[in-house]
Amino acid sequence: MYVDVKVEPRYAETDQMGVIYHGNYFTYFEVARTGFFKHFGYPYKLMESRGIMLPVVDVSCQYKKPILYDDDIVVRTSIASVKGVRIKMSYEIIRTTTEEVLATGSTTHAFVDLELKPVRYKALDEALKEIIEKVCSHKE
Amino acid sequence: MYVDVKVEPRYAETDQMGVIYHGNYFTYFEVARTGFFKHFGYPYKLMESRGIMLPVVDVSCQYKKPILYDDDIVVRTSIASVKGVRIKMSYEIIRTTTEEVLATGSTTHAFVDLELKPVRYKALDEALKEIIEKVCSHKE
Amino acid sequence: MYVDVKVEPRYAETDQMGVIYHGNYFTYFEVARTGFFKHFGYPYKLMESRGIMLPVVDVSCQYKKPILYDDDIVVRTSIASVKGVRIKMSYEIIRTTTEEVLATGSTTHAFVDLELKPVRYKALDEALKEIIEKVCSHKE
Amino acid sequence: MYVDVKVEPRYAETDQMGVIYHGNYFTYFEVARTGFFKHFGYPYKLMESRGIMLPVVDVSCQYKKPILYDDDIVVRTSIASVKGVRIKMSYEIIRTTTEEVLATGSTTHAFVDLELKPVRYKALDEALKEIIEKVCSHKE
Repeated sequence: MYVDVKVEPRYAETDQMGVIYHGNYFTYFEVARTGFFKHFGYPYKLMESRGIMLPVVDVSCQYKKPILYDDDIVVRTSIASVKGVRIKMSYEIIRTTTEEVLATGSTTHAFVDLELKPVRYKALDEALKEIIEKVCSHKE
Repeated sequence: MYVDVKVEPRYAETDQMGVIYHGNYFTYFEVARTGFFKHFGYPYKLMESRGIMLPVVDVSCQYKKPILYDDDIVVRTSIASVKGVRIKMSYEIIRTTTEEVLATGSTTHAFVDLELKPVRYKALDEALKEIIEKVCSHKE
Repeated sequence: MYVDVKVEPRYAETDQMGVIYHGNYFTYFEVARTGFFKHFGYPYKLMESRGIMLPVVDVSCQYKKPILYDDDIVVRTSIASVKGVRIKMSYEIIRTTTEEVLATGSTTHAFVDLELKPVRYKALDEALKEIIEKVCSHKE
Repeated sequence: MYVDVKVEPRYAETDQMGVIYHGNYFTYFEVARTGFFKHFGYPYKLMESRGIMLPVVDVSCQYKKPILYDDDIVVRTSIASVKGVRIKMSYEIIRTTTEEVLATGSTTHAFVDLELKPVRYKALDEALKEIIEKVCSHKE
């Protein structure tokens, strides 16, 4: 189960090779992540108001074909796994006109409270656990 | 009286026209502004610790010739004027190899305290006033 | 006559003051400018294919109230004036929930051909002139 | 064998958590990579003039502790491996005042010619091969 989040490449994000600069893909992943949780009625703001934050601890990206400024893209976003106090999100950047996968990637986050202390899965907000149960099959 | 602050253009800051994206000039002005006050032994951190902040209220930039990724540039930085609770900084981006002015610009800032309330010039920290007196001839 | 273009602030664009970094407003203006011409059926790509480019020669921005990450904003975009080989676009960033103007700004562009030579207004593409005639009352 | 490249965090790169935004670490890696090759007298420009480019095909980053705006950091940069037509660079971001490793990461690049066709290791420019031989022990 995944959510497709539309992202509009911006001119400022191109580089002199004429493509979207590779570091900006993580901005797109963040936009997608936000859209993913919003899709389930659970915006970040609500998450924070319930005392949960998701700082990034690990990221990766594999670049297949460049993203051009004019490309119509979506980021196909899902939860890859939840293990202990960590959640791993997965992403595919897809050019909608050709259905090509331009890049894949992942970001791993720690569940922490507002004092940055780890929060165990069982202690999470029920609404957040419901989303995870619904989306993610690899949970330990 | 001015201070020349070296700034290194970064690849991420180029755009698909093959030049530094015009919005990034304000990042260079900020690096220059920081370097300017550091030059006078007055880093932002010290300013903040003395209860003064300088939020941006107005900016402008005039683009003469593009900055290329490989260009060696300095930002010639000065205080243009101080009026009431506002300070206006001026900048020239200069390619050091040819001494050409690639762009000029300005940023105007309010003197505020940590609660964002305006601070009158007379009430400023003495060290900051000394820098202004030394550098700036247009003070009202 | 103006066009309201929705822009979504991104987390990456915030700074440690907890607001959208002031330099990023020019990225928003660019997104708005693109949306403005697209609204009239004249995307940049078409413009370039007809041999016209609009490099930035001058920009300004006045900051009234900060933009927050969660803000719903539009950029109210118009053509302020056309003089000789230059076109000046104007922008208002408006928080849609409160109808407050958070910032105003402008960008001035030269009409140039693909070899960066100035193009006089009369020599412009008819479709572009039609948009200008429709939108802009200050034309010389 | 590694090269330590100094990078100055910029205010524009902070986010509303009060730390350097995680996507910007790849900009720092790029600055470090450029500095690494420059250290060996082989700037990118020379590389390109000899018909070699190094597009990014894969990246990763592990975040240990946040980078703050005021931090003095270096990026400890090396070549991790060269396999077939790919080179993997490795990075450690180190706070110089405390010698703590704040983050580790890698970027993998393809050797390609100016038409983006893969270039086998043996066919590379001698000067580039010399640097690789000197720095990298994992070469296949």
